[in-house]
Amino acid sequence: MLTSCSDQPGIVAAVSAFLFENRGNIVDIDQHVDQDVGVFFMRVEWEIEGFALKRETLAASLEPLMERFSMKWSLHFSDIVPRAALFVTKENHCFYDLLSRHESGELAMDIPLIVSNREDLRAVADRFDIPFHYFPISPETKSSQEEAEIALLREHRVELLVLARYMQILSARMIAAFPHRIINIHHSFLPAFPGARPYHSAHRRGVKLVGATSHYVTEDLDEGPIIAQGVTAVSHRDAVPDFIRKGRALEQSVLSRAVWLHLNRRTLVHANRTIVFG
Amino acid sequence: MLTSCSDQPGIVAAVSAFLFENRGNIVDIDQHVDQDVGVFFMRVEWEIEGFALKRETLAASLEPLMERFSMKWSLHFSDIVPRAALFVTKENHCFYDLLSRHESGELAMDIPLIVSNREDLRAVADRFDIPFHYFPISPETKSSQEEAEIALLREHRVELLVLARYMQILSARMIAAFPHRIINIHHSFLPAFPGARPYHSAHRRGVKLVGATSHYVTEDLDEGPIIAQGVTAVSHRDAVPDFIRKGRALEQSVLSRAVWLHLNRRTLVHANRTIVFG
Amino acid sequence: MLTSCSDQPGIVAAVSAFLFENRGNIVDIDQHVDQDVGVFFMRVEWEIEGFALKRETLAASLEPLMERFSMKWSLHFSDIVPRAALFVTKENHCFYDLLSRHESGELAMDIPLIVSNREDLRAVADRFDIPFHYFPISPETKSSQEEAEIALLREHRVELLVLARYMQILSARMIAAFPHRIINIHHSFLPAFPGARPYHSAHRRGVKLVGATSHYVTEDLDEGPIIAQGVTAVSHRDAVPDFIRKGRALEQSVLSRAVWLHLNRRTLVHANRTIVFG
Amino acid sequence: MLTSCSDQPGIVAAVSAFLFENRGNIVDIDQHVDQDVGVFFMRVEWEIEGFALKRETLAASLEPLMERFSMKWSLHFSDIVPRAALFVTKENHCFYDLLSRHESGELAMDIPLIVSNREDLRAVADRFDIPFHYFPISPETKSSQEEAEIALLREHRVELLVLARYMQILSARMIAAFPHRIINIHHSFLPAFPGARPYHSAHRRGVKLVGATSHYVTEDLDEGPIIAQGVTAVSHRDAVPDFIRKGRALEQSVLSRAVWLHLNRRTLVHANRTIVFG
Repeated sequence: MLTSCSDQPGIVAAVSAFLFENRGNIVDIDQHVDQDVGVFFMRVEWEIEGFALKRETLAASLEPLMERFSMKWSLHFSDIVPRAALFVTKENHCFYDLLSRHESGELAMDIPLIVSNREDLRAVADRFDIPFHYFPISPETKSSQEEAEIALLREHRVELLVLARYMQILSARMIAAFPHRIINIHHSFLPAFPGARPYHSAHRRGVKLVGATSHYVTEDLDEGPIIAQGVTAVSHRDAVPDFIRKGRALEQSVLSRAVWLHLNRRTLVHANRTIVFG
Repeated sequence: MLTSCSDQPGIVAAVSAFLFENRGNIVDIDQHVDQDVGVFFMRVEWEIEGFALKRETLAASLEPLMERFSMKWSLHFSDIVPRAALFVTKENHCFYDLLSRHESGELAMDIPLIVSNREDLRAVADRFDIPFHYFPISPETKSSQEEAEIALLREHRVELLVLARYMQILSARMIAAFPHRIINIHHSFLPAFPGARPYHSAHRRGVKLVGATSHYVTEDLDEGPIIAQGVTAVSHRDAVPDFIRKGRALEQSVLSRAVWLHLNRRTLVHANRTIVFG
Repeated sequence: MLTSCSDQPGIVAAVSAFLFENRGNIVDIDQHVDQDVGVFFMRVEWEIEGFALKRETLAASLEPLMERFSMKWSLHFSDIVPRAALFVTKENHCFYDLLSRHESGELAMDIPLIVSNREDLRAVADRFDIPFHYFPISPETKSSQEEAEIALLREHRVELLVLARYMQILSARMIAAFPHRIINIHHSFLPAFPGARPYHSAHRRGVKLVGATSHYVTEDLDEGPIIAQGVTAVSHRDAVPDFIRKGRALEQSVLSRAVWLHLNRRTLVHANRTIVFG
Repeated sequence: MLTSCSDQPGIVAAVSAFLFENRGNIVDIDQHVDQDVGVFFMRVEWEIEGFALKRETLAASLEPLMERFSMKWSLHFSDIVPRAALFVTKENHCFYDLLSRHESGELAMDIPLIVSNREDLRAVADRFDIPFHYFPISPETKSSQEEAEIALLREHRVELLVLARYMQILSARMIAAFPHRIINIHHSFLPAFPGARPYHSAHRRGVKLVGATSHYVTEDLDEGPIIAQGVTAVSHRDAVPDFIRKGRALEQSVLSRAVWLHLNRRTLVHANRTIVFG
């Protein structure tokens, strides 16, 4: 369960008492108070086995407690695996990395489909027997293509979109259809070098570290809530292709960490920032 | 308050209810269950202002609750600043760093005295007007000198010993006098390169990263519970003096982080490992 | 060209004069003197286009110069791509990562075959249409199986062996057949935690960083010359499976960096240490 | 010797031949070609002992060679220690760190004076017996005060200015008086968060890493050539004061690394980027 509300006395006491009384064995509890804005956040994980309340009626049973504190909350069951669509273009490294971690069981999700604006990576999808949907996008077709994508994603009951170096800007409409459910990897240390060709900009600026940032997509390009970031050292000996090469491992690890955190319900968003219960 | 006990249902509920009923405004609560060994750990920080129980009787009031769960626990008040002694030898960088952070208020402690087995850094202590106690140590005098040190430390009601590149091995007796209250900085990524001259060993081994480790001192040399670690890159171009130079900034930052964590009561030790509520 | 010899005056002058006189346009030159042992190392990369000497006779032309300084040297042409065999067992992450970087052109090598002591990853090799050779190993069959492997590798003119989480210890004979041509990834920050199950040992020791080390395999297990290392942060909240998960991205990036360095002839070995002209 | 010129064949051959013929024992040579702009950079370090040319006439002897390649070049002798002025305001951590490294011999420089726009750190300067010059700055007095500073710095033959968290923007005139001789530490990962209060901005943006950047000061605020950068992890649990605390160790290490590189003549600037022969 993920919750947030205005900070007030007695929240932890009330929630933990509720679980204790219903014989909920707490596996993990983590909470945070943002003192600046007076907001309380909590993630509680408990075992369903031995729990006094039935899964079907749990939400209803929690309702009064949640209302008492005016909580925003969501319930997740670890045996119900989220359905995710991967969006790709040409670069294969994040794509393979996600597929490999999915195959090994690290990333607990179903991947009913791949979406791409190019054909380049169809062969990779084929290798993994995942349906590959090609949606070429031009300024004229963008709107209708995205509508088709949304329909397809809904049909497949997709909950999460992972942009694995997807080289297309999503429209506001598409983003609104999946609020805080689209994870992007940007190949810079945001807010440095937003937009196109960040490695080129980083090289021109002469930085000594290059970065990668995974974030939830919002309407403001590359300005959504950051989930994870990483950096790696570069020097004057590194030309742009070296930046790109060194950045690949970083992009992979930062994106897969962010996806893992989301899938394990360890992220909350407030005021364009994430609370990450790592 | 720092507590630990066997994991069992209802701990969080009971403690948070106790605080809620006594109008204790929780500022920060962090807990952890080590599933492997079935031990529960918790750190709770609440405001004394507005709290229904008096500081003097608080411990007695908590006693029944603590007994119910067979808790090990300790209470700390943030306005009572720990008293720490710095142990130094020749190297000045960690010494200056601790003094600078103490002066700026980052490290909330009193430093009633400096202890050294050499005279080299007396001038630095003098600059900061902190009494410098010189205890030369030879195999013959070690035992009596340490006894004198213990007496002096007790006289000054010292709670924490910080070995800021102190180049002497403490005896079991001395360590027993300050259990989990002696913090050392070792200039390697432990457990690699324990003992003397780790940078020389690291260079001989040809590592590509050098490390630093801050840990509580136990009888087993360089094997105590680790509080913080860091690394920095080296290359074949770096000779031993370069390892030493690059390691300095690391030693400073790792030691001061560990001391900060201890002073802010964010560390618990169990089975030779630390729980760090960072 | 990679060279090393006893340090002596005039080496750089002689080599650069040789290239200048033969109109060799130097693209990159990097050298290093290990002052401790008095050994000189150099890597020079120049363009073959416009160069006065023919590829076929170049070695013979260089011979007198190399003899004058008693140099050990090797010549490589960037358009002749090394042939590498990947050794795998069960873990797929390094395997996929190498295949992905190979596919994208980052790792310029041919992969004529995969070797494994288990069948688990045959399907992955199949997906990439690379022949998968299964060599089950028991104490009784080890010697004969390795002989068969060596024959197969020679038949395929394999120059480099990459152990991508290959869970078998190679015999001295096998190692001698490919001196400094077998790259392993060990999932710890060597020399900490050599041998089996390093994440378990790291967790037991309570470290705050876990590491990965890529090195050339020598007869001494996990003690060969280190090519690349990396670390990532862990905390008390991380159990062994979390160490394993967090270590994966590290292993991938450290191994692929090491393989890239080798393929681009940027490594030299001396006295069990590497010179890495990154 | 530090040199740079248009890339052209024969530079290394000519310089190394010159040194060899004059019995200059090369200790270290490092060179770099920026292929994008076609510029060659080199740093050569050789022993003056046994060298055939006298120190006094060396520059004249080098002149023809340098002219042949139209080189920009500078000669430095390691026994002539640069004179540096430290500029400080209120924060003491970088100040102490530089003083400590100076005292230990790591930073080979003379510090004839401290400059500050506030009185706060006079006591620290006094402790180290270094003259402290107080130059309060207001919009009205800025110009005249800077002129006085420049006069004072020239009088003391100061070559390098180190802004150790100096909270004043230097005028174009002051910067022009010390081109690429003023090193600043900015408490962010530039180009992210230039200008005032970067930790506040970083916190508001919700980054997961905070950084520090040391650079040469140019007229464009926080846009000068970067010498060194570093980052450290932060989380949602860290408020602005935690960012500041965690950033301190970073600022120290990044600034002292940059100063060390400059003092050891390991930096060259071209097109607003540095070549760092680390």
